[in-house]
Amino acid sequence: MKTINLNTSTRTELLEITSLVQNTIKEEGVEEGVCYLYVPHTTAGLTINENADPTVMRDILTSLNSLIPFDGDYRHLEGNSAAHIKASLMGFSLNLLIQRGKLVLGTWQGIFFCEFDGPRSRKLHIEIIIKQ
Amino acid sequence: MKTINLNTSTRTELLEITSLVQNTIKEEGVEEGVCYLYVPHTTAGLTINENADPTVMRDILTSLNSLIPFDGDYRHLEGNSAAHIKASLMGFSLNLLIQRGKLVLGTWQGIFFCEFDGPRSRKLHIEIIIKQ
Amino acid sequence: MKTINLNTSTRTELLEITSLVQNTIKEEGVEEGVCYLYVPHTTAGLTINENADPTVMRDILTSLNSLIPFDGDYRHLEGNSAAHIKASLMGFSLNLLIQRGKLVLGTWQGIFFCEFDGPRSRKLHIEIIIKQ
Repeated sequence: MKTINLNTSTRTELLEITSLVQNTIKEEGVEEGVCYLYVPHTTAGLTINENADPTVMRDILTSLNSLIPFDGDYRHLEGNSAAHIKASLMGFSLNLLIQRGKLVLGTWQGIFFCEFDGPRSRKLHIEIIIKQ
Repeated sequence: MKTINLNTSTRTELLEITSLVQNTIKEEGVEEGVCYLYVPHTTAGLTINENADPTVMRDILTSLNSLIPFDGDYRHLEGNSAAHIKASLMGFSLNLLIQRGKLVLGTWQGIFFCEFDGPRSRKLHIEIIIKQ
Repeated sequence: MKTINLNTSTRTELLEITSLVQNTIKEEGVEEGVCYLYVPHTTAGLTINENADPTVMRDILTSLNSLIPFDGDYRHLEGNSAAHIKASLMGFSLNLLIQRGKLVLGTWQGIFFCEFDGPRSRKLHIEIIIKQ
């Protein structure tokens, strides 16, 4: 398992990590298998979506921030309940397939670390199960 | 890894793919393991839910379409931002368990390809890790 | 694969199962690998979130119940459409990493069974793929 440090720069942000994950797979020399990404936080998550047009990321964040407003009928005193809820909606892990040493991604797909309570220093775990 | 072509027939649709996945497992002759489903798109996803009463699928789609309206405060010019958001909410991959050559599913569970920007030709990747 | 019985006590509930999963890994004696949790139901799911302050769980449930009201424009006659929708939003499976015999979890992370149509008797499947 490899752990990577990430730094986010705003309160909510979709930080693309596609190259970072691809480079890790290349370094490990894995040809075929499954790659697990895991976020060990409770106010950040992971998703996949379009990485070509940044307005898609903007629309995803705006929509999530509208559905789950920063200030709502929350009891948690730290003031970041919205971030906890959004993280559970996106999820904390992703599985990706590896073929011929490369991530199997669709033409428009990128992998994104979802910051919902930034800016912060974050961690991402990467584990690979080699197909035999 | 096997790739299957799917055709969806409406703008938003939950297309059941349970038999298709089960048949792939049978063809591969896998007895015990984990089955990964992966959608290489950014406006379609995967979920599990009840396949007995079609009103459940209707209620899921109606509710998602109401939470994330087709026309909203979106900047992405292709007009399908809602589809991108719904896909991230459902997720692009599923893990299923295989026991004695069969998918481990609950009595009422079916596997659904979630079309959010159809009708279209789509792809689904299926990978199986055999338990040793 | 191991199946564990759970009992929920209210209509919507986040039931912490972290120790239960950790104990299963210890019993199996697994040092390194991936742990799959799977819920074979259509009105319950799984998530990860903060287990230190119970108001976080309360805020997650309150927010989900507000976004997807119990009574809405639903056609499914069993009256639990909201539970089906919430389960698809949270998801039915989780992957967790195992290192040195322990679940890899963040400092504040707990694993939660999400009951959306309780109280009920429920099942949880646990499968482990050992890393070789």
